[in-house]
Amino acid sequence: MTTSQLIQEIKRKKSFLCIGLDVDLNKIPKHLLEEEDPIFAFNKAIIDATHHLCVAYKPNTAFYEAYGLKGWKALEKTINYLNENHPEIFTIADAKRGDIGNTSTMYAKAFFEDLAFDSVTVAPYMGKDSVEPFLAFENKHTILLALTSNQGAFDFQTKTVDGKEVYKQVLETSKTWVNSENLMYVVGATKAEYLVDIRKIIPNSFLLVPGVGAQGGNLQDVCKYGMNDTVGLLINSSRGIIYASNDTDFAASAAQKSEELQKEMADILDASSF
Amino acid sequence: MTTSQLIQEIKRKKSFLCIGLDVDLNKIPKHLLEEEDPIFAFNKAIIDATHHLCVAYKPNTAFYEAYGLKGWKALEKTINYLNENHPEIFTIADAKRGDIGNTSTMYAKAFFEDLAFDSVTVAPYMGKDSVEPFLAFENKHTILLALTSNQGAFDFQTKTVDGKEVYKQVLETSKTWVNSENLMYVVGATKAEYLVDIRKIIPNSFLLVPGVGAQGGNLQDVCKYGMNDTVGLLINSSRGIIYASNDTDFAASAAQKSEELQKEMADILDASSF
Repeated sequence: MTTSQLIQEIKRKKSFLCIGLDVDLNKIPKHLLEEEDPIFAFNKAIIDATHHLCVAYKPNTAFYEAYGLKGWKALEKTINYLNENHPEIFTIADAKRGDIGNTSTMYAKAFFEDLAFDSVTVAPYMGKDSVEPFLAFENKHTILLALTSNQGAFDFQTKTVDGKEVYKQVLETSKTWVNSENLMYVVGATKAEYLVDIRKIIPNSFLLVPGVGAQGGNLQDVCKYGMNDTVGLLINSSRGIIYASNDTDFAASAAQKSEELQKEMADILDASSF
Repeated sequence: MTTSQLIQEIKRKKSFLCIGLDVDLNKIPKHLLEEEDPIFAFNKAIIDATHHLCVAYKPNTAFYEAYGLKGWKALEKTINYLNENHPEIFTIADAKRGDIGNTSTMYAKAFFEDLAFDSVTVAPYMGKDSVEPFLAFENKHTILLALTSNQGAFDFQTKTVDGKEVYKQVLETSKTWVNSENLMYVVGATKAEYLVDIRKIIPNSFLLVPGVGAQGGNLQDVCKYGMNDTVGLLINSSRGIIYASNDTDFAASAAQKSEELQKEMADILDASSF
């Protein structure tokens, strides 16, 4: 999917919501455990109930790998279901991968070809040659970790390197990489005030923003500091939506939570004349 | 496996060789492609031919994920084969994972419980709460990326933070984490001279050293600067061993290459009176 198709979809749906499909078998409604594939059954119900309210889905691969082969199978069924039924929706493999060149190419093939996601999250620690293999794929997007939403972000990301924080160094350096136009960035909502400085470095890039909701981030603040003239934001909510209820009404509850966020987003978009 | 069991095995085999099982279907002998599971058939042959010469095997997960479900299945068969037939061998899932707390726990379960590896490689960018969930598993080891063997290591890892390079900051900070005794570190062989400073910070930890062979690192230098009084090194070779031949003699050729390295290691160990 191209970035302009994503922007078009945001305007059409009046939404820049991304729903995180982080399926934990201990948290999903008990009745689903009787299904042949409870993980996929859960995802399908969530997707069917919410696809008109969001523009992206983001399965975090950890939740699938933890269940071994059946988890990987459920991930494959989920991305195939999305691509077949909702090709207009942007898909994110939240995998936080990154390795030396030829190995990163294998990861890129795994997520862009074998599983056919539109994008994958990548960790920057190993530098240029660990990220460029992902950037080489046309109309695919590499979402680089810049400033994450967790407390550990302050261990290294915000430390000052040559007068500049590590995450800013990551942003600036990444702009020099081949095919850097295929980059997006992870910026945690719990650090909304940082977005002012971030937008000075990457004014035009899309930001994937986790941490709204369960982790305490504020949607209004993120939009105030982070929105650009093509919106430029994908706001992720996982637990706040998919575990809104753990009873038979879980999908309807997820839709309701999604709609609350979508309406808030529509108001923000209207106020900004998008 | 405990660290002292690993040390015992190093002394018994006179080897601190780790063999990287990075299976690329384009590189393995053609006749194996007729097997039902070519990836596992290749790994099994390599393991059968080399297990007496090495103390660790390290499948890089990228090479398995790139083949989707059948790749993950081959990874599962490989770790099960190792655990059943060679429980004395240290196993490393080279996965370079890392995420926020509850998500890292899912990754730890994937590699320590579902796949039952002894260790997993983890990226440090997201800090303390992204790594501690791995450290919580008893007799399991978390191998933190410190200074990697690729060119991109110079993009961020060697940049100076408050008068100290990022990788040194990672080493020092990681020592303060809960259960830090379960940490080992990745340090690339292509930067052997850095080992002097690294050993000042982490004198007792095991180092996983990639980059000997194909990537140009030198075994003698690594040992000179990196060895400690319990050896403290696992030297990885992947392509140099497993692709020594791509004909029907591939396993014998892999054993020969392994033996060359093992003999060099035995000489070094003898000279150091281990």
